[in-house]
Amino acid sequence: MTETVEIPPRSGTAFLLPAGATLTVIDPCGEQVSDLVAFAQADVREVISNGRTFDYEESMVLTTGNRLWSNRSRPMLEIVHDMVGRHDFLLTPCSEATFRHFYPGKPLHRGCLGNLAEALAPYGIAGDSIPTAFNIFMNVSVDGESGRLRVLPPLSKVNDSIRFRALMDLVIGMTACSAYDSNAGSFKPIQYAVTRD
Amino acid sequence: MTETVEIPPRSGTAFLLPAGATLTVIDPCGEQVSDLVAFAQADVREVISNGRTFDYEESMVLTTGNRLWSNRSRPMLEIVHDMVGRHDFLLTPCSEATFRHFYPGKPLHRGCLGNLAEALAPYGIAGDSIPTAFNIFMNVSVDGESGRLRVLPPLSKVNDSIRFRALMDLVIGMTACSAYDSNAGSFKPIQYAVTRD
Repeated sequence: MTETVEIPPRSGTAFLLPAGATLTVIDPCGEQVSDLVAFAQADVREVISNGRTFDYEESMVLTTGNRLWSNRSRPMLEIVHDMVGRHDFLLTPCSEATFRHFYPGKPLHRGCLGNLAEALAPYGIAGDSIPTAFNIFMNVSVDGESGRLRVLPPLSKVNDSIRFRALMDLVIGMTACSAYDSNAGSFKPIQYAVTRD
Repeated sequence: MTETVEIPPRSGTAFLLPAGATLTVIDPCGEQVSDLVAFAQADVREVISNGRTFDYEESMVLTTGNRLWSNRSRPMLEIVHDMVGRHDFLLTPCSEATFRHFYPGKPLHRGCLGNLAEALAPYGIAGDSIPTAFNIFMNVSVDGESGRLRVLPPLSKVNDSIRFRALMDLVIGMTACSAYDSNAGSFKPIQYAVTRD
């Protein structure tokens, strides 16, 4: 039986995902974002890389059949099922600094970066080592000509999901996003389930 | 007097760039790419970040007036003059692995990643810590709808240049790119000059 775990609003978690296991990420309320980062369990200096992924997948739109690559040019995760088809791999986790910059009138929050740093610390991963995340369900429009980026509400609806297969033993960090723009201004949980073959 | 330094074809270098100094990067033959990475001299765990730059500049097209940001949300470099207007911040430095993947019939080369790793080692910077580079003059087209990325010949002409101002004391790594696609199949040098106010 597969247990579904809930990540409460504006928080984060970390866990081991062995090679071959499946990670399903569910948006239980719709229009919520989860920042995902991955590190090789054997050596956490090997880390998910947007640049290497863009190199090898030759696309910024990553969905079923695409793989997420490490800084050492090895595939870490494969997307095996995707009900949404729109995620972001351009922007970094929100943080105290981004709250100060983008929401100067709002209360400060440590954001996904602070949540990931705390969750990943027991695995020997420092905050400085948290890279640009694969932002599940995050909807960032790109104007190919001007390069302009706009953060739009996620396309995910209630209980939409995406499923990954681990291609190596991984440490995964994941959040229920804390920023206003990424989830249309409402903070919601994220759920996930790990299935071992 | 400002000395112009030449980076020979398919090689790389590293040097200190103090806060306030100006770095001019010149394409002496036209249609060549230079991968640039930057680290805070005071603590090389602070490193240039495409994700943070996209966050704060809200654009993937970075030119005069834009700043390149660190993983700690601090601006590292400002583009103060740009004769070309098209550079890339999506793709990672070419490497032995990318040569194997993209050019299987061609001789192996350690690429910009290997060149940067050797040049940066004396500053205590390991290969794993080399992030997605700011690829000066690299021309990557993005289809905003499909996300498809295509590497096209640079728009830079003979002696075109871009100029940066350092906003903190930096360690800079730079190459004359080794890959076939990024410079239309011909390997050429890159020149640079540092001016202190």
